[in-house]
Amino acid sequence: MVTTPERLTVPGNPLSDEELRKIDAYWRACNYLALGMIYLKDNALLKDPLKAEHVKPRLLGHWGSSPGLSFIYLHMNRIIKQYNQSMVYVAGPGHGAPGVLAPVYLEGSYSEVYPDKGEDAEGMHRFFKQFSFPGGIGSHCTPETPGSIHEGGELGYSLSHAYGIAFDNPDVIVGAVIGDGEAETGPLATAWHSNKFLNPIRDGAVIPILHLNGYKIANPTILARISHEELESLFRGYGYKPYFVEGSDPTYMHQAMATTMETVVKEIKEIQQEARSTGVAKRPRWPMIVLRSPKGWTAPDSIDGHKVEGFWRSHQVPMSDMHTNEAHLQLLEQWLRSYKPEELFDENGSLLPELKELSPTGPLRMGSNPITNGGLIRKELRMPDFKSLDYVIDVPQPGTTEVGNTGPAGKFLRDVMRMNMTNFRVFGPDETASNRLQAIYEVSKKTWMAEMFAEDLDGSQLATDGRVMEMLSEHTLVGWMEGYLLSGRHGFFHTYEAFAHVIDSMFNQHAKWLDICKNEVPWRAPVSSWNILLSSTVWRQDHNGFSHQDPGFVDLVTNKSADVVRIYFPPDANCLLSVVDHCLRSTDYTNVIVADKQKHLQYLSMEEAIKHCTKGLGIWDWACNDDCGTEPDEPDVVMVSCGDIPTKEALAATAIMREEFPYLKVRFINVVDLLTLMPKEEHPHGLSNREFDNLFTPDKPIIFNFHGYPWLIHKLAYRRSNQERIHVRGYKEKGNINTPLELAINNEIDRFNLVIDVIDRVETLGSRAAHVRERMNNAIIENRNHAYKYGMDRDEIVNWRWPY
Amino acid sequence: MVTTPERLTVPGNPLSDEELRKIDAYWRACNYLALGMIYLKDNALLKDPLKAEHVKPRLLGHWGSSPGLSFIYLHMNRIIKQYNQSMVYVAGPGHGAPGVLAPVYLEGSYSEVYPDKGEDAEGMHRFFKQFSFPGGIGSHCTPETPGSIHEGGELGYSLSHAYGIAFDNPDVIVGAVIGDGEAETGPLATAWHSNKFLNPIRDGAVIPILHLNGYKIANPTILARISHEELESLFRGYGYKPYFVEGSDPTYMHQAMATTMETVVKEIKEIQQEARSTGVAKRPRWPMIVLRSPKGWTAPDSIDGHKVEGFWRSHQVPMSDMHTNEAHLQLLEQWLRSYKPEELFDENGSLLPELKELSPTGPLRMGSNPITNGGLIRKELRMPDFKSLDYVIDVPQPGTTEVGNTGPAGKFLRDVMRMNMTNFRVFGPDETASNRLQAIYEVSKKTWMAEMFAEDLDGSQLATDGRVMEMLSEHTLVGWMEGYLLSGRHGFFHTYEAFAHVIDSMFNQHAKWLDICKNEVPWRAPVSSWNILLSSTVWRQDHNGFSHQDPGFVDLVTNKSADVVRIYFPPDANCLLSVVDHCLRSTDYTNVIVADKQKHLQYLSMEEAIKHCTKGLGIWDWACNDDCGTEPDEPDVVMVSCGDIPTKEALAATAIMREEFPYLKVRFINVVDLLTLMPKEEHPHGLSNREFDNLFTPDKPIIFNFHGYPWLIHKLAYRRSNQERIHVRGYKEKGNINTPLELAINNEIDRFNLVIDVIDRVETLGSRAAHVRERMNNAIIENRNHAYKYGMDRDEIVNWRWPY
Repeated sequence: MVTTPERLTVPGNPLSDEELRKIDAYWRACNYLALGMIYLKDNALLKDPLKAEHVKPRLLGHWGSSPGLSFIYLHMNRIIKQYNQSMVYVAGPGHGAPGVLAPVYLEGSYSEVYPDKGEDAEGMHRFFKQFSFPGGIGSHCTPETPGSIHEGGELGYSLSHAYGIAFDNPDVIVGAVIGDGEAETGPLATAWHSNKFLNPIRDGAVIPILHLNGYKIANPTILARISHEELESLFRGYGYKPYFVEGSDPTYMHQAMATTMETVVKEIKEIQQEARSTGVAKRPRWPMIVLRSPKGWTAPDSIDGHKVEGFWRSHQVPMSDMHTNEAHLQLLEQWLRSYKPEELFDENGSLLPELKELSPTGPLRMGSNPITNGGLIRKELRMPDFKSLDYVIDVPQPGTTEVGNTGPAGKFLRDVMRMNMTNFRVFGPDETASNRLQAIYEVSKKTWMAEMFAEDLDGSQLATDGRVMEMLSEHTLVGWMEGYLLSGRHGFFHTYEAFAHVIDSMFNQHAKWLDICKNEVPWRAPVSSWNILLSSTVWRQDHNGFSHQDPGFVDLVTNKSADVVRIYFPPDANCLLSVVDHCLRSTDYTNVIVADKQKHLQYLSMEEAIKHCTKGLGIWDWACNDDCGTEPDEPDVVMVSCGDIPTKEALAATAIMREEFPYLKVRFINVVDLLTLMPKEEHPHGLSNREFDNLFTPDKPIIFNFHGYPWLIHKLAYRRSNQERIHVRGYKEKGNINTPLELAINNEIDRFNLVIDVIDRVETLGSRAAHVRERMNNAIIENRNHAYKYGMDRDEIVNWRWPY
Repeated sequence: MVTTPERLTVPGNPLSDEELRKIDAYWRACNYLALGMIYLKDNALLKDPLKAEHVKPRLLGHWGSSPGLSFIYLHMNRIIKQYNQSMVYVAGPGHGAPGVLAPVYLEGSYSEVYPDKGEDAEGMHRFFKQFSFPGGIGSHCTPETPGSIHEGGELGYSLSHAYGIAFDNPDVIVGAVIGDGEAETGPLATAWHSNKFLNPIRDGAVIPILHLNGYKIANPTILARISHEELESLFRGYGYKPYFVEGSDPTYMHQAMATTMETVVKEIKEIQQEARSTGVAKRPRWPMIVLRSPKGWTAPDSIDGHKVEGFWRSHQVPMSDMHTNEAHLQLLEQWLRSYKPEELFDENGSLLPELKELSPTGPLRMGSNPITNGGLIRKELRMPDFKSLDYVIDVPQPGTTEVGNTGPAGKFLRDVMRMNMTNFRVFGPDETASNRLQAIYEVSKKTWMAEMFAEDLDGSQLATDGRVMEMLSEHTLVGWMEGYLLSGRHGFFHTYEAFAHVIDSMFNQHAKWLDICKNEVPWRAPVSSWNILLSSTVWRQDHNGFSHQDPGFVDLVTNKSADVVRIYFPPDANCLLSVVDHCLRSTDYTNVIVADKQKHLQYLSMEEAIKHCTKGLGIWDWACNDDCGTEPDEPDVVMVSCGDIPTKEALAATAIMREEFPYLKVRFINVVDLLTLMPKEEHPHGLSNREFDNLFTPDKPIIFNFHGYPWLIHKLAYRRSNQERIHVRGYKEKGNINTPLELAINNEIDRFNLVIDVIDRVETLGSRAAHVRERMNNAIIENRNHAYKYGMDRDEIVNWRWPY
């Protein structure tokens, strides 16, 4: 910091002396509030001399980024008023929440949703005390923060969230403040490339504002310690036109920021006007801002002989021990008074009118912009009828025809897209065609604002106005989708099952966000669900091998609140259609759908599929020979399947048993909605114990053939009666280069091992059992020999059909 | 591609006609082999006319990147021979394995470890057939690939892996080939900044080679579709000096690559010599290469009227239907013959000697460089005695003194560092001090090659030769550590528990890599374990709030092979020391240690800690009143704890029960090694059922107070006897801004709720039970009232000690 001269890339001093005085006073009010939130539980307006008892006993929160955050906020306010411009503020350094909460409070947005924190002394007192206080609000831009759709607790997603807001919001400008700490994360480092996907005609704009305040918790940041030349090259390389606002003197900095903001917004408007008037969408060099200001700006230069302002020591609470260290207490009082609260607030503790008038009003206030409470402006998706013959697979006999399961869903998504060409997008990492959803391209292609070549006409499916978002960054895609959903639109993300783990952490954070919105923040309206289709699943990654086999994403999902998580394993194409339709209509959930893209047997007519998916699980009569329904305890064994491939194998095992043990009564159950297995008390979809026992019997052996890691079923069903009888098969990390059946065999979810499982658990099979066991073992060996010779499973395995 | 002129940033034609002819012939041999691997199962040398029966029935593998990968490999070979230079090859586009396997086979490395794939016709036949074939090898650079430490199945980590190899390997140059698809991922996009952490004196060098072949699966890549000026700016901004080799004509391209490679290597040597002779380590602008060559280079221009070479259609298998489409079969034969195998291999199918001599020999061959089988050259860590008084906490009475648990481990790591200053590093995202491991800095500071300022002397702990790696990118840190471990060194990573999910996917891939190495690749020597300390854990994130609370990383870990996963919850500082010592000495594991950084009660002397951690779990006699040992079935209830904070609460509950119900016999068990709960048959640390019942009794109620999500315990222990009696408490997503005890209370792992749990489950407590329940409920209310008033838990809670 100290080595950097005051620097500005554009000339001009747009603020009159009066404007300058006022904006600086407003900023002092913000800084006063930020400091008050961190330190004060009483004496909010400092009408009395500061005493230890006014200071919170446990000091929490982050000062470091706060002054910079409100500095930016106020200069965005100025633009909003000047142009009547709708703007949204995304605070990457979410732990600088005081720097956001302060202006949100001063503009009046806060008191509107929290009337007990009014714009007066008592309100300010409560506003201070609740901050980072038990029962109060967090030190990040949590869902409780009006105007926030980005918490910033986990770093990396501010810029992709900002672009997600801007898509299909042509009138909005999103100011995305990116901390230079966050800028070191991978997700953020690639999100800069989002500018290759922003269309100036149809989309709004993003102003990335790199807040280069030099330090993280206890380290300098990389971008603050490279040369100006490198820094500028980097952002030019990312395709931006960077403007620099660098310095520390507030007078200079206000003028510099005001002139830069004006320049940048004018440039954006010129770009948009050019594109919108000509109808030609080219990729412009969008402007961005680098704000290099001191960490902990306006804090004391030093405390106890250590540098504070402009150093990492100001990151969190720069000074503590207020209750035992009189000098610190005095310094705190000086520091608080340095903002001259008496010149900022009237007797009642309200911001002076001459300052208040710098705020925008109504929904133009960034804390009240309805876009940031997206549920308010969300329009229901217009939905085609998923039962239409355009999508539905005809299933004359269960288990006798094969269809790629995701293809019909692709057609359905195509028509959803067609009917919602301004508020629905599909996201996937270069795999929309690979996951067999390519019908979508008939209606809308992939967004692409970078160069196009002649050969792209032959199938690349690129268009500047495409609505399918493909980039090889799951982080960026999900970040875009989250911004898009939280600002009131609809989305659908699909990816390879194994690589969903790349965004585990983003899932966690989004589920937590929804949980809080739903249960703790009544003024947040419901938003569209976060939908993910996991395709290219483990059982058909036999050829890509071990690194592509991981069905564990759902394990993670089950850890999150039952209020917001849903998991579906549709066994066939009609069930997938029903599930996708349901998920797209839902709100405030994270819906995880697992369905493979390859050809699979079809089981249920659409009518049956709807019934089955609505119940979430059920007996497949046609696959049972236990006369189920009349005498519920009758079967000798219950065969359960969950997932497309495990279902085929479980059915094949059932067919073998009918041949080999015609007297054995088998009940066949398929589970679509995984969380029906949870206790009713723990998940709204959970079966009661009575329902469970009616279906699964209270005591008969259960062979459960599961798509994922087998122990997940035990985790969900551990409270069910006699659960030691539940024998689960699933993926247990036994994979390499295999054939599909060999992969199933190695993990023992195959038909032959399932028959052996039954033989092991049903004592009444008699002398034939040993013989059948040997036949099963031989079949396993034969298939392997065939596979190793020809590279494929035996024909009768590949072409197996339900024979009845 | 087509729009780009042949371009080269340095002049010169270093190859004589003869050299040019040979290197091109060698490259043709590579391409022939790559194509053979994908297509042929017979007629490997094409001595007979190609027939359908020679072609594999199922065509798998990726042609797209393969020719470029071997092109680079051969030009690195040339440098190795010219300078006797140790080089390592990292193939980011791991799915281009044919382009790596081919030169590894031709140089003889492959046949040395797989003698049945010899350098003759029969060997080549087997080499072809096994590729992407059941029972054979994968289409990525899997552990079975000699010379590979990077699979490339999941994209994003090639560059960080490469830097990890280069650290502390001053004589090595790592060529890191980065696909332009991979370059779009977040982890890769930030890994470019690794150059701010590479010291030219002590470390080797990395040549990043961006392989700009223009396309992913079905899309162009971003970096291939921005202007040359932007591309160059981007890499200058990242701090590199980019050299461009662009074109498609092999003659031109060989000369261009040869001259560029020479220029780059000379520059690296100059940089190193300058730094090493002056002893001054500055950050140079390291050179890098952009290789822009056609996707699917040397494939047919078009097939069936569709462009193939230089387009995404060449990504995978460019042409199929060989068994039904005679034209395709002919085209394949033409294509194969275009490499003129008869000019490359002798009668026996061995590479002609005049070509073979272009390969380096012995360990300089990149497929045989011992660095890539790091276990071979790994030196055991020199270890201080963790039982030394420098670290050990004196525990005169259990549960009566408090110490920060991670501090002593920090001192221990400091001395491990001191004794291993060339092959041990500690990795953490800006949190080494925050996680209280800062004693390390006494011995070695943080690596920092970017600018330093005067104020950094006041505690920033930066040094060009530091051995503590801090960057705000968990992806980069773990990538570095993996490269470092797999090349034979030792490492320790620590991070905030909740944000470990950022690298879930990296953990998965590394665990899979180790599993295969251990069980399928006997020639791979054991490497040091992947160690992670999860600190700043959920129960002390009451102030940071919900987004910082997620103990689910261990859930993920339990899905991986029991051969490679270990999970530890040391309850106090001495146990943590014992566990860290054990983990650092181990090989081929992923060790996960969960321990909070804050002050906690201490329980065990070092002697006791060693015994306890060695067993993995055990009865704490001093906390029992069941006369345990003599009559194992005697307790009325078994109280179990796992994790530091849950242990304190479980003990406090036990103390309350002794007061309230002196006749109640309580057995107290602490679990350090989580996987002891698994069945013995499923994990080597698992207890037998008899051992389990001896400890936990076969039938008494168990109250299990767990650090993580409670259902994980059910998942592990589902096979134990009468497991419906196991009642688990843990984190269940109930958090916001709380006090520590309030957070515990909301999730019911606190002392009061545990007592209520016992009351609910033990029927013999008599009339006093109702009274105690009421007291517990009152205590909960009192604490909350206190917390909401003062922001802290009540003193008697905070200062609670084991009273006996």
